[in-house]
Amino acid sequence: MKKLQEKICDEGIVLSDSVLKVDSFINHQMDPILMREMGLEFAKRFANKGITKVLTIESSGIAPAIMTALEFQVPLIFARKKKSLTLKDNVFTSKVYSFTKQEENDITVSKEFLAPDDRVLIIDDFLANGEAALGLIDVIKQANAEVVGIGIVIEKSFQPGGEKLRNSGYLVESLAQVSSLTGGKVQFKSNQMEEITT
Amino acid sequence: MKKLQEKICDEGIVLSDSVLKVDSFINHQMDPILMREMGLEFAKRFANKGITKVLTIESSGIAPAIMTALEFQVPLIFARKKKSLTLKDNVFTSKVYSFTKQEENDITVSKEFLAPDDRVLIIDDFLANGEAALGLIDVIKQANAEVVGIGIVIEKSFQPGGEKLRNSGYLVESLAQVSSLTGGKVQFKSNQMEEITT
Repeated sequence: MKKLQEKICDEGIVLSDSVLKVDSFINHQMDPILMREMGLEFAKRFANKGITKVLTIESSGIAPAIMTALEFQVPLIFARKKKSLTLKDNVFTSKVYSFTKQEENDITVSKEFLAPDDRVLIIDDFLANGEAALGLIDVIKQANAEVVGIGIVIEKSFQPGGEKLRNSGYLVESLAQVSSLTGGKVQFKSNQMEEITT
Repeated sequence: MKKLQEKICDEGIVLSDSVLKVDSFINHQMDPILMREMGLEFAKRFANKGITKVLTIESSGIAPAIMTALEFQVPLIFARKKKSLTLKDNVFTSKVYSFTKQEENDITVSKEFLAPDDRVLIIDDFLANGEAALGLIDVIKQANAEVVGIGIVIEKSFQPGGEKLRNSGYLVESLAQVSSLTGGKVQFKSNQMEEITT
């Protein structure tokens, strides 16, 4: 997605060879117009797949996911990162390790909101090692529902998550695929660079 | 807001005289169409106030806030509930006590995103004791920016937050004002009930 790549080039800050900070438009401050356009783009890429629910994980996934859910006119569920007092125990649960934060969280989704006939689209802001996506897939499987696909805002394709998920047969669509952050410079996968130049 | 009140009556679950669970359309599963309509309603209620930023707190505030920010075409900032590794120390910080979760959190907002000329609209899902709103106001004041108003999805007006904020001179607009949960029944403030019957 050209506009997203341009925004990453303009405002993204490369903190190290593996960490890209996009706090000015995705992870802390958010650009609502870009979020809306990303929702439209995800809706296009996963069109005609009979999606009944969108699933994400708090917090940065919520904005792109609600815009996607709006296009599909289906509910969004966000997995919580720790058990809430009002959720009680009627939940699907999985463990997600965050390499960025160096901590493991229980993610939980209430059993009320996922049923065996659900066709679920996962949306998240980043794909790196794939831990969050695998946790969400685990939750969907516990509900005997179907994973229709995984929509990612920024995939760091030099990390193993994307390949792991695609090799397992999942349809992964990433709006920007970053192939390298080496030397403080953001590089995109070449098929995406062509998009920019055309 | 009539549609929200109807949804609360249909799907809200009264867990006690003070706790209303709206997990099926606001706090865990979200209704994107209702979120969009709430964004439009907030935009109407705070029109012509020169808002430059919307501020909320993760996680449940993000969806109504991004829809509001979309209408105003201004950035949304969500305050984080604990310090992130990539935020470093260039942050405004305040303490927020959650009566529901019985814990105190540091909330943080990067200094990059709030400036003295900002006119900020606070959006949050619930207003009960006002702790979250006061924490966000504190952050805005630290930035020497202006609090233009506070938009709340559900105000529990039998708890002191709303009165505290209005008595301090803040413009508070709540889309639903719940006056009582006694006996397992949701009651709205009478001026809002009239809206429903007309």
